[in-house]
Amino acid sequence: MLSASYVGNRTFDVGETDAARPGRGQVQIAVAYAGICGTDLHIFHGDMDARVRAPAVIGHEMSGTVAALGDGVSGWSVGDPVTVMPLEWDDTCPACRAGHRHICQNLVFVGIDSPGALQGRWNVRADLLVPLPEGLSLQHAALVEPVAVAVHDVRRSGLAAGDRTVVLGGGPIGVLIAVVAREAGAEVLLAEPDERRRATAAELGFRTADPGDLVELVQEWTGGAGADVAFEVSGAAPAVLAATDVVRVRGTVVVVAIHPQPRPMNLQRVFWRELTILGARVYERADFERAVELLAAGVVPADAVITTVVPLTEVADAFATLESGRAMKILVDCGGAP
Amino acid sequence: MLSASYVGNRTFDVGETDAARPGRGQVQIAVAYAGICGTDLHIFHGDMDARVRAPAVIGHEMSGTVAALGDGVSGWSVGDPVTVMPLEWDDTCPACRAGHRHICQNLVFVGIDSPGALQGRWNVRADLLVPLPEGLSLQHAALVEPVAVAVHDVRRSGLAAGDRTVVLGGGPIGVLIAVVAREAGAEVLLAEPDERRRATAAELGFRTADPGDLVELVQEWTGGAGADVAFEVSGAAPAVLAATDVVRVRGTVVVVAIHPQPRPMNLQRVFWRELTILGARVYERADFERAVELLAAGVVPADAVITTVVPLTEVADAFATLESGRAMKILVDCGGAP
Ligand SMILES: [Zn+2]
Ligand SMILES: [Zn+2]
Repeated sequence: MLSASYVGNRTFDVGETDAARPGRGQVQIAVAYAGICGTDLHIFHGDMDARVRAPAVIGHEMSGTVAALGDGVSGWSVGDPVTVMPLEWDDTCPACRAGHRHICQNLVFVGIDSPGALQGRWNVRADLLVPLPEGLSLQHAALVEPVAVAVHDVRRSGLAAGDRTVVLGGGPIGVLIAVVAREAGAEVLLAEPDERRRATAAELGFRTADPGDLVELVQEWTGGAGADVAFEVSGAAPAVLAATDVVRVRGTVVVVAIHPQPRPMNLQRVFWRELTILGARVYERADFERAVELLAAGVVPADAVITTVVPLTEVADAFATLESGRAMKILVDCGGAP
Repeated sequence: MLSASYVGNRTFDVGETDAARPGRGQVQIAVAYAGICGTDLHIFHGDMDARVRAPAVIGHEMSGTVAALGDGVSGWSVGDPVTVMPLEWDDTCPACRAGHRHICQNLVFVGIDSPGALQGRWNVRADLLVPLPEGLSLQHAALVEPVAVAVHDVRRSGLAAGDRTVVLGGGPIGVLIAVVAREAGAEVLLAEPDERRRATAAELGFRTADPGDLVELVQEWTGGAGADVAFEVSGAAPAVLAATDVVRVRGTVVVVAIHPQPRPMNLQRVFWRELTILGARVYERADFERAVELLAAGVVPADAVITTVVPLTEVADAFATLESGRAMKILVDCGGAP
């Protein structure tokens, strides 16, 4: 099988290796497509070298079919279309004991902390598999993981039908949050500095704004009240200040993006308007299953989100393209599609 | 009657003036005691000169008795012991229409935006009066307003019995939050850099910590989980970072203090642990009534919180003492006590 290994310094080694047999309790998946996300890009940049020990096969957004079953696995058949919810919790830490296993204090994120999907065959724990319905293409199914992030973020926000919602950041997660929020009945305004990304969002039917005009626009849009919910998806410092500026009294800001440095936040506004700031990370099983449903129902404009599909041999180019901002979502064809 | 007017530049004019008759719908209160709070101190410093137009009688924490009724007022009798919930909302803005009148977008804070209690007779709208029970001394009753702040903050936190709670800041509001949280069944650790304030909190039976030792102490205290709730009451930048460091996965930080400048906040931690950051400001009527109950029941260690009582003629000295940090709560005797 082909396999792509991150070896450090913005470099992948792509080559033929032998597929390992699935261990006890594991399923071997023939990986069809793997999506590249912002975290993968951070790894490629070397920002996460302390956590990801090169050489490492990364990748955690994927679709595929069951290729072989390890000992002790039942309930799956060779050929079943599947995706993977890439979280392994320890079930013993205080977070797990309190029922928040998806953000276990010792979480293993499969594809970051352990081998991932950028290979033709991938062995994963059977309990991480999520079945895919007939009729959902494996290309679209490679979006289940990022859609599950969006589902989780929207669910955590407590957003209700009719709520006016601002999404700060028009990359894949921002667009998917906008889609999921709209499906939940919200009106959505997406703020994004990049003109092409704004155009993509506008084509999908969303109100859009340049961040410089955002606060004034939201004031007009909401009759001076402010938006009900804002999602900070950009990771940019000015967006953190804008997020509290655009929400109403008792409004909610959901922090979705990664901010490696402490960010100036307008706590006077948090106090004055009794705002709620919520962190939202990954997903729970129900979010994953809802993401499958939304994709299968055609709610997610998957073809607009997927910019291109490249073979595994071109994975390094795909990372470079993504880095340049000239793509939304790039899928890597890992060779396992039937 | 005696009256103290803030005239700007850290100065009060104290002198005899004629008491105005209460207008239609107003009650004239013989003011017994008025407490001085951090906001009053900000006014004294000149920080709020744009909002408070000198000369201005300020003061919004108080107790007294009904002295006279204006036209159209019923339900009150001369001599009734009362305090005042000093909020006037417009009932028409989006916040009011959504049911959040206590943080009305056009809120008039009586004693800041309109005349306050540092005078022998004070005319206020009858609907702002809150009755005091027999047996609650007027000195203790002057604490109803700050206790209502603490009740509101704790209620907003969603704190449950058994929750481990960190209070950052050991001034009057910090101590009162600790008291109200303990009454709600929480275990409380109070962090405060000032040794005398720590000693006061310790005498009241609270765990205490120097902020420098806080994170490690909370780790030990909670077996590595983190606290359930933290209240940021200090207004200090380092406490904003500490607040997110000390809470557990899905824990809550309540922002109670005023932070005039945007503060660096650890959004990575907010994201990673799916924290909730809540602003909490003033109080609703139910908080005020609960505060009266807690004081009447002797739950609030009022005598430990009230450092001293001074006559209205010494109001400027009282502000200076408070500024020096050598007092918790100073009451001003406004001359209206029976
Ligand atoms: Zn765990
Ligand atoms: Zn209002």
